[in-house]
Amino acid sequence: MNTRSTPGFHGVIPPVVTPRSNDGAVDTGSLERLTKYLLDGGVSGLFVLGSSAEVSYLTNEERDLVVRTIVGVNAGQVPVVVGANEQTTARVIDEGRRLIDLGADAIVATSQFYAISDLRETEAHFRSLHAALDVPLLAYDVPVRTHFKLPLGLLVALARDGVLAGVKDSSGDDVSFRQLLLATRNIENFDVLTGHEVVVDGALLGGADGVVPGLGNVDPAGYAALYDASRRGDHTAAAREQDRLAEVFNIVYAPTPGRVSPGAAGLGAFKTALMLLGVIDTNVMSEPMVRLDEDETALIRTVLENTGLL
Amino acid sequence: MNTRSTPGFHGVIPPVVTPRSNDGAVDTGSLERLTKYLLDGGVSGLFVLGSSAEVSYLTNEERDLVVRTIVGVNAGQVPVVVGANEQTTARVIDEGRRLIDLGADAIVATSQFYAISDLRETEAHFRSLHAALDVPLLAYDVPVRTHFKLPLGLLVALARDGVLAGVKDSSGDDVSFRQLLLATRNIENFDVLTGHEVVVDGALLGGADGVVPGLGNVDPAGYAALYDASRRGDHTAAAREQDRLAEVFNIVYAPTPGRVSPGAAGLGAFKTALMLLGVIDTNVMSEPMVRLDEDETALIRTVLENTGLL
Amino acid sequence: MNTRSTPGFHGVIPPVVTPRSNDGAVDTGSLERLTKYLLDGGVSGLFVLGSSAEVSYLTNEERDLVVRTIVGVNAGQVPVVVGANEQTTARVIDEGRRLIDLGADAIVATSQFYAISDLRETEAHFRSLHAALDVPLLAYDVPVRTHFKLPLGLLVALARDGVLAGVKDSSGDDVSFRQLLLATRNIENFDVLTGHEVVVDGALLGGADGVVPGLGNVDPAGYAALYDASRRGDHTAAAREQDRLAEVFNIVYAPTPGRVSPGAAGLGAFKTALMLLGVIDTNVMSEPMVRLDEDETALIRTVLENTGLL
Amino acid sequence: MNTRSTPGFHGVIPPVVTPRSNDGAVDTGSLERLTKYLLDGGVSGLFVLGSSAEVSYLTNEERDLVVRTIVGVNAGQVPVVVGANEQTTARVIDEGRRLIDLGADAIVATSQFYAISDLRETEAHFRSLHAALDVPLLAYDVPVRTHFKLPLGLLVALARDGVLAGVKDSSGDDVSFRQLLLATRNIENFDVLTGHEVVVDGALLGGADGVVPGLGNVDPAGYAALYDASRRGDHTAAAREQDRLAEVFNIVYAPTPGRVSPGAAGLGAFKTALMLLGVIDTNVMSEPMVRLDEDETALIRTVLENTGLL
Repeated sequence: MNTRSTPGFHGVIPPVVTPRSNDGAVDTGSLERLTKYLLDGGVSGLFVLGSSAEVSYLTNEERDLVVRTIVGVNAGQVPVVVGANEQTTARVIDEGRRLIDLGADAIVATSQFYAISDLRETEAHFRSLHAALDVPLLAYDVPVRTHFKLPLGLLVALARDGVLAGVKDSSGDDVSFRQLLLATRNIENFDVLTGHEVVVDGALLGGADGVVPGLGNVDPAGYAALYDASRRGDHTAAAREQDRLAEVFNIVYAPTPGRVSPGAAGLGAFKTALMLLGVIDTNVMSEPMVRLDEDETALIRTVLENTGLL
Repeated sequence: MNTRSTPGFHGVIPPVVTPRSNDGAVDTGSLERLTKYLLDGGVSGLFVLGSSAEVSYLTNEERDLVVRTIVGVNAGQVPVVVGANEQTTARVIDEGRRLIDLGADAIVATSQFYAISDLRETEAHFRSLHAALDVPLLAYDVPVRTHFKLPLGLLVALARDGVLAGVKDSSGDDVSFRQLLLATRNIENFDVLTGHEVVVDGALLGGADGVVPGLGNVDPAGYAALYDASRRGDHTAAAREQDRLAEVFNIVYAPTPGRVSPGAAGLGAFKTALMLLGVIDTNVMSEPMVRLDEDETALIRTVLENTGLL
Repeated sequence: MNTRSTPGFHGVIPPVVTPRSNDGAVDTGSLERLTKYLLDGGVSGLFVLGSSAEVSYLTNEERDLVVRTIVGVNAGQVPVVVGANEQTTARVIDEGRRLIDLGADAIVATSQFYAISDLRETEAHFRSLHAALDVPLLAYDVPVRTHFKLPLGLLVALARDGVLAGVKDSSGDDVSFRQLLLATRNIENFDVLTGHEVVVDGALLGGADGVVPGLGNVDPAGYAALYDASRRGDHTAAAREQDRLAEVFNIVYAPTPGRVSPGAAGLGAFKTALMLLGVIDTNVMSEPMVRLDEDETALIRTVLENTGLL
Repeated sequence: MNTRSTPGFHGVIPPVVTPRSNDGAVDTGSLERLTKYLLDGGVSGLFVLGSSAEVSYLTNEERDLVVRTIVGVNAGQVPVVVGANEQTTARVIDEGRRLIDLGADAIVATSQFYAISDLRETEAHFRSLHAALDVPLLAYDVPVRTHFKLPLGLLVALARDGVLAGVKDSSGDDVSFRQLLLATRNIENFDVLTGHEVVVDGALLGGADGVVPGLGNVDPAGYAALYDASRRGDHTAAAREQDRLAEVFNIVYAPTPGRVSPGAAGLGAFKTALMLLGVIDTNVMSEPMVRLDEDETALIRTVLENTGLL
């Protein structure tokens, strides 16, 4: 847990999914309901235009619509962190400025992708973003998509220099994550968030500031309870809640490989669960991803029933 | 070599680099001179907004300016193939339509990236692009950037169905490349282009229709001579020319690893060579890539002198 | 934590390093002292011929000598788990039988490597090993070496069928690890061990049975204290101990990349620390790995001093 | 094509497969017939205990039996190059010495595997092998198995210093392959062999000394004809023969993915074709690989019939 003189990024900050109508358009009514559902669930922030939002599939117009909708419902209740999802420095800056105009309280950016980059360029990339954007900047470490793991030393250096206000770690490298927590423990205004749904109890035990769980769309109150238990030192209760949420997480195994892509499986499961819970209207995905079918939906219903969510 | 009832994509189709001025802006004067240099060198087409153009680093405004400039100089002399460099289907369609309006004769697209996709989605991706875009569609197979090799069977199916008019292969999988040549030999209106500079003689011997060589910016006449020798059946002469060009290709080893990223090394070398040849004004790169320094430039000068280009 | 009707594999089971003399031979005197040091430190088992033992670098004669030496000192005090490090099924069986004759209480095996295998073959591999070997079989999941992650579903199936008595997880996939813990919680005689040094508190909180920490060579008592704190439910104390051990773990960053390979860095650091602690005589590595030099040794001394081990 | 003052490694050097009887034992009768079939087909050398021999699946006793059998039939007619397939330097030396005693004329070795190594260690590895083994040493560059591409610069340095007498390239990196041919063209006693079946015409056009084709087990005379055409400068005839062989190579797509592993598919197809041709008795594979079934065998029969081999 890092020290911080100003309000930061901590607790449960779910990456809000993007509901679509049956005609494929962004469904703002469902998105409004989802945003309220998350706020009612006790989340500490909203992570907008993340991978769970299918951000790379959204046109610029759709991205703007999503931000506007969520910012409107939130009305300043919690910080809104927005992903500026573009390939290279100049394009991220263009994207980030537009999103800030729409109300983003902070910008999240990955390292460059498609581009074949290196350490020096990645450092320059984040320094340029920080210089060009007027809100706090968080790094999103997601090598499964960017194919570049943000090195521990770079993150620490950028934290020390105030370039980064935090990092969302979806690297799957829990060793580096722990070392990052230790190395930045005494840096003010730097928050470390895990993006992995089922190891939150251990991450918080190790000092993480918060979590950005895709599954938090489905059960925001569960993650809030897990976070609160950990914060009051009841780690056994946190682990029990984590185990329950890990059971819920099994919904991501419902989709059939081959029919549903690896990238669509988890998101499709979250959307399907939200549809079954009555929060959003459909489980339609951005093309060319396919929505879960009836059999897959039935499997998800069973998981939700077995874990008491339905 | 594929049969074709209409004019297609064959011969030397260099991926035009994007010159920048010292202030970092796209240098349209240099780009005009470069385009003329390539046409004078005997190229059969122009590959615009490819990886060699630093396409992923260009803002949309810069992309448009590059296309307009090249289309203007070309004035219909050779086909202009333009890369629609975006992450997912809907975004590629938006990009492609804008580029067609600017004069693209054909669109080149990769599989989705950043997105974690699969075979079924990739097929749907190309079919949707074909349906939405009014010009021939070529696939760009570049797994080093997209981290997804386009499978042989998918390419053959899309060729047979007329979805793809060709493929630019930068996969480095020469076995799959040869199998693709054999499997599509009798498909009309489908062209297979290699993106690898130093194995063009073998690729043409095996039946390739053409080549998209980054090094073709530097020595378009050399590649035209290599292509012509191969077409008239003088493979020994083609190999001799290829060996000479492979010596020139050694300029890509001039940049210092660590200082210059893997993605910037080759492009930086091509730009520096073009600067030394007097074709463009500077070797400035898109940020955060760095331009080659004096020592690296001197190494490139030596290669150009040793191979008779300077 | 799994149920078990017979004594199993739990607690701290360090992978014993292999000391060498200055002439390169296995140093049995140092190995005897190290084994005593570990037993005195309160370990629950000994993991012999693991990656930390440089097993892939040892000739068969050296492997036998190492097993004989450790088995002799241990004299039945704790279970001795031995790695049968070979490429394919038939070769692992040959290796495993020899090691059992030398006193192995259990055999650990990876999936096949060098071989290009798949799920079905991997299942057949472990079933054949189980059928051919007369002691409990543990799977070693180490995709950074084998380039094949043992799938969650396969591990659960092999656990249910009694083929596997446990798994040592060095996969770095903490999500799969947690799901494995949940899925095997009610399977008797199946133990789940983490191989990652710095996330043991979280792993134990999530239900892991034990840990196989390379760093446990250096500070066995520290890991024993961490394990005991966790077992008595004092997770905050466990995390504090883990944080201390994570500081000690920084010794692995002492070696200079380029001079010392990634595979030699951690092992070299452990050996150097043990040398500084007076447990073993030298930090000599198996060729072609190099030992840490004076500067690197000085860095390690500093870490040991700062963390109170020296 | 490299200069050489002594007889070297050139032409067609097929990697001899290892026939097994229905009881799983190495079938020396079939192996003798296969060896004669290859020699009758006009091969210039024999590559023994390569990946196509299922070397990593053979016990040491089986490896010895295979070498003895082939060396006996060959009786000095062509050079016998033998793979010393082990994980690390000391183990390769042990293995290599035993194979030399059995009659190996040259030893082939990969970089270290399972071990996590680097450039410096790899250089030391090959230098130690060269110093310890009394026959010519060839490097086998097969990153799909070792997960380490032998760098161009290292190969050139080791060739210049006389450490390596050649390289068998199965890297799939045709750019590096061409640069290696150019860089070693004037080095005496260094031969460059491609391991890829379907691009031999282009490799020879570019100056390769020979080929080690797994498919050469099935059609040695075809590869000999391709090589001869290329050597006499008739590259068009060579390409025609290559295209025919590429059609035969389609047998590797007969096995069903999931049922037959990627590693077993090609080898299983070669064995099945040899069985259908009457050269060997069965298509039995080393466990846990499975032999091709009747349907897959029927597909292979069709390819052989369509290409005139049956």
